[in-house]
Amino acid sequence: MSKASSNVVWHHATVTRERRERRTGHKTAILWFTGLSGAGKSTLAHAVEEALYARGCNTFVLDGDNVRHGLCGDLGFSEEDRQENIRRIGEAAKLFLEAGVIVLTAFISPFRRDRRAVRNLVMHGDFLEVYCKAPIEVCEERDVKGLYKKARAGLIKDFTGISSPYEDPVNPELIVNTGTDSLETCADQVIKMLEERGILSAPKVSN
Amino acid sequence: MSKASSNVVWHHATVTRERRERRTGHKTAILWFTGLSGAGKSTLAHAVEEALYARGCNTFVLDGDNVRHGLCGDLGFSEEDRQENIRRIGEAAKLFLEAGVIVLTAFISPFRRDRRAVRNLVMHGDFLEVYCKAPIEVCEERDVKGLYKKARAGLIKDFTGISSPYEDPVNPELIVNTGTDSLETCADQVIKMLEERGILSAPKVSN
Repeated sequence: MSKASSNVVWHHATVTRERRERRTGHKTAILWFTGLSGAGKSTLAHAVEEALYARGCNTFVLDGDNVRHGLCGDLGFSEEDRQENIRRIGEAAKLFLEAGVIVLTAFISPFRRDRRAVRNLVMHGDFLEVYCKAPIEVCEERDVKGLYKKARAGLIKDFTGISSPYEDPVNPELIVNTGTDSLETCADQVIKMLEERGILSAPKVSN
Repeated sequence: MSKASSNVVWHHATVTRERRERRTGHKTAILWFTGLSGAGKSTLAHAVEEALYARGCNTFVLDGDNVRHGLCGDLGFSEEDRQENIRRIGEAAKLFLEAGVIVLTAFISPFRRDRRAVRNLVMHGDFLEVYCKAPIEVCEERDVKGLYKKARAGLIKDFTGISSPYEDPVNPELIVNTGTDSLETCADQVIKMLEERGILSAPKVSN
């Protein structure tokens, strides 16, 4: 543009993450829910989002519903594609972080290497790994999507927990026992962690 | 989770785009800035973002700075890769739309087919194409990143406007003359369009 072009070489973002955080009154983070299929990752992520939203936070959940057929719609379930799937989700989550949004991701993400790669994408403290721990027997009994049945019948290959490994988080920021504890208990534990880490301040009334 | 699992099959998002829009007091949209390298897309997008932010809007800019080395870091500049680049940016923009954020994208996006594909990803009215129109002579004279010089020297192949076509938008929602008008004029035109389309209501004081 004529006026600006003489001395503006590159117009950097003026609306920074820090400005957004000051305005919303909360810090941002990636809440990375990991665990077996049926462990309750997505259910928990949405329950936590509802609680955060009620406190006036900017939030967003990335899960299979809005990612698998969109951003990662070209990917299958090979090891390479699963790795690329997690990489893209991590990069998308990083964008939300910059946008001042607490982003909650709900994907099995079975491999330590892939989760570590996302952790390394962002600053220390930005990536909070929440291990949704539930015995596979419980997940398989729930089998809300009928996937375990299909996997047992050999109709799905490389199914985590059946024919492909799930690598437990080594030092997750939080472990929630989604196999035994109630949704409310698990959600409260996540919120408490966010308060303790200074992501959230004391509860305030939503506008 | 034990209590929930008996009757909750799949926990859908309760924090919807509509709820977010009601709370922020503005609708969301994808503002898709397209035009030649040096036309001022990113500068304009950031200026518009600053104006929107000052009005209390939730905003985010996707541009080469935060996408090229991240979400699309595995992609080159072949026709296939450029197409995939725009596809992923469109999908990421769609996620921000759902998150209640007015998302501004600043990419050359030279091909009608690719821009149309993004338009078709979202609902009618969600995709607002802003053609940043500037003569190539002006863009080449600015050459803020020295890319035209390199392209003329044959160091960059498939460079839009030099060795690869730029396909003008057919029916963009807005044309701004970034080659002749000031940054302020162009930004005002974008804001005016958002008001006319009901994305923004009357100006309100930022909190």
